[in-house]
Amino acid sequence: MTVELSYSDEVTGLVASTEAFVREVVLPIEDANGGDIAVAGSDEIRVELQSEARSRGIFAPHAPVEYGGLGLDMSDRAPVFEAAGYSLFGPLAVHIAAPDEGNVHLLAHVASPEQKQRFLAPLAHGDQRSAFAMTEPAPGAGSDPSALTTRAEKAPGGWKINGHKWFITGADGAGFFIIMARTSGAPGDRGGATMFLSPADAPGLRVERHISTLDRSMIGGHCEVFFDDLFVPDEAVLGAVDEGFAYAQVRLGPARMTHVMRWLGAARRAHDIAVAQVAQRRGFGSVLGDLGMVQQLVADNEIDIAATRALLVRACWELDQGGSAANATAIAKTFGAEAIGRIVDRSVQMCGGLGVSDDLPLARLSREVRPFRVYDGPSEVHRWALAKRVVGAAKRAARERAQ
Amino acid sequence: MTVELSYSDEVTGLVASTEAFVREVVLPIEDANGGDIAVAGSDEIRVELQSEARSRGIFAPHAPVEYGGLGLDMSDRAPVFEAAGYSLFGPLAVHIAAPDEGNVHLLAHVASPEQKQRFLAPLAHGDQRSAFAMTEPAPGAGSDPSALTTRAEKAPGGWKINGHKWFITGADGAGFFIIMARTSGAPGDRGGATMFLSPADAPGLRVERHISTLDRSMIGGHCEVFFDDLFVPDEAVLGAVDEGFAYAQVRLGPARMTHVMRWLGAARRAHDIAVAQVAQRRGFGSVLGDLGMVQQLVADNEIDIAATRALLVRACWELDQGGSAANATAIAKTFGAEAIGRIVDRSVQMCGGLGVSDDLPLARLSREVRPFRVYDGPSEVHRWALAKRVVGAAKRAARERAQ
Amino acid sequence: MTVELSYSDEVTGLVASTEAFVREVVLPIEDANGGDIAVAGSDEIRVELQSEARSRGIFAPHAPVEYGGLGLDMSDRAPVFEAAGYSLFGPLAVHIAAPDEGNVHLLAHVASPEQKQRFLAPLAHGDQRSAFAMTEPAPGAGSDPSALTTRAEKAPGGWKINGHKWFITGADGAGFFIIMARTSGAPGDRGGATMFLSPADAPGLRVERHISTLDRSMIGGHCEVFFDDLFVPDEAVLGAVDEGFAYAQVRLGPARMTHVMRWLGAARRAHDIAVAQVAQRRGFGSVLGDLGMVQQLVADNEIDIAATRALLVRACWELDQGGSAANATAIAKTFGAEAIGRIVDRSVQMCGGLGVSDDLPLARLSREVRPFRVYDGPSEVHRWALAKRVVGAAKRAARERAQ
Amino acid sequence: MTVELSYSDEVTGLVASTEAFVREVVLPIEDANGGDIAVAGSDEIRVELQSEARSRGIFAPHAPVEYGGLGLDMSDRAPVFEAAGYSLFGPLAVHIAAPDEGNVHLLAHVASPEQKQRFLAPLAHGDQRSAFAMTEPAPGAGSDPSALTTRAEKAPGGWKINGHKWFITGADGAGFFIIMARTSGAPGDRGGATMFLSPADAPGLRVERHISTLDRSMIGGHCEVFFDDLFVPDEAVLGAVDEGFAYAQVRLGPARMTHVMRWLGAARRAHDIAVAQVAQRRGFGSVLGDLGMVQQLVADNEIDIAATRALLVRACWELDQGGSAANATAIAKTFGAEAIGRIVDRSVQMCGGLGVSDDLPLARLSREVRPFRVYDGPSEVHRWALAKRVVGAAKRAARERAQ
Repeated sequence: MTVELSYSDEVTGLVASTEAFVREVVLPIEDANGGDIAVAGSDEIRVELQSEARSRGIFAPHAPVEYGGLGLDMSDRAPVFEAAGYSLFGPLAVHIAAPDEGNVHLLAHVASPEQKQRFLAPLAHGDQRSAFAMTEPAPGAGSDPSALTTRAEKAPGGWKINGHKWFITGADGAGFFIIMARTSGAPGDRGGATMFLSPADAPGLRVERHISTLDRSMIGGHCEVFFDDLFVPDEAVLGAVDEGFAYAQVRLGPARMTHVMRWLGAARRAHDIAVAQVAQRRGFGSVLGDLGMVQQLVADNEIDIAATRALLVRACWELDQGGSAANATAIAKTFGAEAIGRIVDRSVQMCGGLGVSDDLPLARLSREVRPFRVYDGPSEVHRWALAKRVVGAAKRAARERAQ
Repeated sequence: MTVELSYSDEVTGLVASTEAFVREVVLPIEDANGGDIAVAGSDEIRVELQSEARSRGIFAPHAPVEYGGLGLDMSDRAPVFEAAGYSLFGPLAVHIAAPDEGNVHLLAHVASPEQKQRFLAPLAHGDQRSAFAMTEPAPGAGSDPSALTTRAEKAPGGWKINGHKWFITGADGAGFFIIMARTSGAPGDRGGATMFLSPADAPGLRVERHISTLDRSMIGGHCEVFFDDLFVPDEAVLGAVDEGFAYAQVRLGPARMTHVMRWLGAARRAHDIAVAQVAQRRGFGSVLGDLGMVQQLVADNEIDIAATRALLVRACWELDQGGSAANATAIAKTFGAEAIGRIVDRSVQMCGGLGVSDDLPLARLSREVRPFRVYDGPSEVHRWALAKRVVGAAKRAARERAQ
Repeated sequence: MTVELSYSDEVTGLVASTEAFVREVVLPIEDANGGDIAVAGSDEIRVELQSEARSRGIFAPHAPVEYGGLGLDMSDRAPVFEAAGYSLFGPLAVHIAAPDEGNVHLLAHVASPEQKQRFLAPLAHGDQRSAFAMTEPAPGAGSDPSALTTRAEKAPGGWKINGHKWFITGADGAGFFIIMARTSGAPGDRGGATMFLSPADAPGLRVERHISTLDRSMIGGHCEVFFDDLFVPDEAVLGAVDEGFAYAQVRLGPARMTHVMRWLGAARRAHDIAVAQVAQRRGFGSVLGDLGMVQQLVADNEIDIAATRALLVRACWELDQGGSAANATAIAKTFGAEAIGRIVDRSVQMCGGLGVSDDLPLARLSREVRPFRVYDGPSEVHRWALAKRVVGAAKRAARERAQ
Repeated sequence: MTVELSYSDEVTGLVASTEAFVREVVLPIEDANGGDIAVAGSDEIRVELQSEARSRGIFAPHAPVEYGGLGLDMSDRAPVFEAAGYSLFGPLAVHIAAPDEGNVHLLAHVASPEQKQRFLAPLAHGDQRSAFAMTEPAPGAGSDPSALTTRAEKAPGGWKINGHKWFITGADGAGFFIIMARTSGAPGDRGGATMFLSPADAPGLRVERHISTLDRSMIGGHCEVFFDDLFVPDEAVLGAVDEGFAYAQVRLGPARMTHVMRWLGAARRAHDIAVAQVAQRRGFGSVLGDLGMVQQLVADNEIDIAATRALLVRACWELDQGGSAANATAIAKTFGAEAIGRIVDRSVQMCGGLGVSDDLPLARLSREVRPFRVYDGPSEVHRWALAKRVVGAAKRAARERAQ
């Protein structure tokens, strides 16, 4: 027998500790503030929660050990991140929220020793936040990253960046930005991008506004950002020039999975709340949870939770083997984002009027999870990429048979 | 040939006038205020919009002619209400918003001449708003109206009402309430309810709070309301004592359909916005709207719009024939509420990040339409009622064959 | 009030007579032969059933009165065809089966007086059957009719046709063929097709084989047909040369709707059988039909039946107004074909093991209806066509605003 | 890191050998006989194929080593059974078809040494086939096993069995039967069943008929069977008296999973055929497989395949840990049966007319997989059982909190 799905005692213990922290400390704060991180106090509450997490030994489970983290691989992250995600503020509290979590991952893989010292260390320790500036308004880089229009032009001793970004999560209050800019080619080309590191207070970097969206739990907002002749020195290049799209893949595969882990936790909370409700409320001469149509909603939630988790386990294991896991992560992201939406929606439905009100957290959870079918690649783009690979392979096979 | 689906010139003209009014006057106000009627000014803006609607001759299309309305039957209301619903504020602007619209309908059918004079006349003219106080928190009257717990007890010259209601739309600022209270039997009994009319400022009637919900476009909120020894005189009984559940059906069948009409308008706006976006934006080397997966979303929206409209036409025609149309309205409501949710959701998806942001009205439309799968009977309750009738008929047929 | 959905007494009576005929005469024959028309006796049983239908005055309800039919318009056909479709053999029995029904419609609109005399008259009277030879195997005319490869070349006094067709319903035993062949242009061109009439016994016309398919109720099979230098005289041209694609639309819009009518009848039978079963069978301490999950299946069937019918009513009315009704027929066909599949599938599921066995007609109905999502244009093609028109209109509107 | 999803070299090799055998030997026979095992020669072809499998060292991968099998646990069976299931005849060919495979499993766990010698040994070696006689027509044991009506009454030296079974797979030609009969209590009681072993040729055991069903690939049919005073000696009791329902669970959990494994193989074949088609065929100016709506069908198939496999891996691992894995197997069975149906249906749709014809195996695969949503417990029953456990736990938790 080779398949093994149990976790080590260390991971199991970490999951339990994270669950306890979330239940005892984080959820009360989330609920008292309607899940709105700005209302709860943004960085003030972040520092407080992260300090408590640190003292409980559950801080930064994904970060390299040498930077104060627990060094978990992707497989072991799955149950821990899900436990943290049970509260909308949980990921922030244990320092695994987007985009910092993905940026830690990226810097650990690509940054130079000096860059690690200057940017990764304070980020991993929670001393500052970061932003990842890739997405642009139409017709720029969105679902199709090759449309990248932000330009970096060589200048003496560095580069001058001009461009317009949006949906830059956490930009407001970030200590530094990782900026994706085109250093060669034209919008539409599949290469020619470079990543740059820039302090947030550099002249020419402007956070214009928070874009108001359905979700409110992200610290630092989803922002619109402008670069006007932003200068970055040569040593600000992250990795190699023109290799930005490849690094983006390094970041995006795992980042997709950690998103699913976290939101799965939120979906489980919605399900737990709804099940607790229907197990108690009565109607039509019965406990609601004993009525067949409600049982169907409950069972479908269980199925969606189990399938999302099983696909996550698969994709994480593939990532841990060192491959790109492009199909497995696309599948887990697409199914997961849709399943999570369904789970929360059914939970709302099970609770009726209460479900659409703020007397329970379900209404806000339904707002929070909706964008996930768009963020990190809409379902349509993942399906398109998947099908292209599958049909492409079939075309090649046919050509080979024909020879 | 007997089937006829065209509308008279009068109705066609009214639709066009309503569309023009919505486009020119109402939508700009909705959009400037993020679709939040409280932000827009509640009754102040209501009076202003209704005055303009009156001057354009499109005010109260459903109200009896003798009360200043246009006297449309259900069939003719369908296209007019849909045109008004294209803006979230449109129904309020032409005075066909819930709950006033349904209350006008109810009073026109059931009220005594004196009650019509005192309550229907000012309501129909837009001089005051009203509330319909039926729904109660668990374990009271919700999806299952027979669970009614609010009690009216006979007192000298009238009745004394005690109870607790919630999700009472428009309660804050209403001039009067129609109150559903139990005058005989016990919670769970399928009879024994009576409707009462009470001025909002009667002692013992207290609007406790607005329940915060996903939707924000309803004037006067969804409120929690208490009756503490509220006294109503004998002449406040609407119709006959103990006949409340029957009158509720008089109100609910048509009210369900007018809800579908209005929300279908909102869904159409979402669709129109999304189609306009994908017809312009480019990605993956193509106009987005020429990509197959986007075409599928567009086509499915068209199908859902057409099917909702066709089911509405059927149900309205049956109501106009004078029957209860119980199956036809349950089908149109259930299909319509779910289809409207799908239409708006696909529209959001078509617009990606923009779709989940407040830069377009789609995010708020997605919030607004979600509760409709719960309000006016959750889909599960309508399906249950439908199946009970169908299976019940099959049981009877089997018994008859067996004899 | 202008909307009118009731039928005349004549139509109502015709529906009742058709139902009685189907119940008393046709269903017993269908069931005794497992729904396989070849087993039942093909043209022998056809002649017998049609003779009985004629004597009951319900024969050929769609055919022009001057050719012995009842001359119903599309709107009035809907309930009559649905009643006939309640048995898989019902449409054949009252002479409204594909492809004859559509061919009668086409010839009545396009044929010359001589052609009507020679082809339409015997067809309308049920003296001979016909075939419509359009579909070709890949890479020819299939979902995309413009791929037409069969060629007709001018010869002295007529045309010489060469080509390869398949899925030609009813070809085996047909008296004559309507043949779609390219008279100009090349495969891929959107014009250049002509329709020809040919007796089935003309030299060069060869019915190669029956294609075995999931459905078995079609008389004369779905056949593969070859034309090898088939000569047809000039007077065999149906309508004008090069106008074949336009005539195909004349035939296809209504033919799509009559397909939906007939299959809706079959779906209703499946539903009725399943409801009768669950109203009687017990399990889990209850009548199955009183269990919530079964109620949901029952209700969803009712919804799908009602929506299909409502969309049919709309599309037929539009066709009766004389327009192309392209959107309305595409919507009714796509929704209808999918809904009919769902209805039968749920009916199977409600009956469990019995449902997948031939002890009930449900298993065979599930086989019979599956191809309808492919025949007459797959759902994907209708969605594509719908979206193209909608997005195209939005593009034009944007261009106009830009000017 | 603890999660491990790779297989040993032995298992990987076995999968490859099984794939080769299926491709080279089994598929040609399946296709030449339209997937109908009776047409192919039933036990004659079975013996031939199994002999070849034995010589290739891939026979009976699940059977205990001491009985000539390869002794794989559930986890390792998953990829091997899926490889075999790629052909409808593959499971029979390597001797892992239902019901023999589940019966081997059951006897290995429950049978006495003498019973193993007499029944398990010849069964495991493929020398005879077996049947599992549990299901009864309504109102007997079906979805609800507690409705068991077949009775075994004590007689001198043994038991006398009377009852009526149906859907007894493989009954025609089986060497022996495992019979579930009630030894105490009444229909509706959740206990009181006993399993008995009986040779097929015992007097009083009568195989009445094959029930014609949508699926045709099962050797020995789905049969209706009668027991009329069938005598079995005391030593024919399998395990202990009155423990039959518990043993049924021992058999059913794993049997459900092996069903999913096999049908997943069949679904993958359907997908592969469809992808190969759309990668080659052209329409609408494109390769079909490059059109967005087709890409969506391809991607959804990939997602369904991956999710089914991932849920299988989870459930098998839980079974290998020795638990009942009741939730995990219910989830994998329910999701799997529905996903497999969707995969085959989409594959049919991708191929259009060809898809519903017997020119490709897709039409027959669509018939074959449909009953799986009913067999081994309809989806509704699994959902009900799942929800009961989940809601039950929530009720208990609420009671505990209340204390």
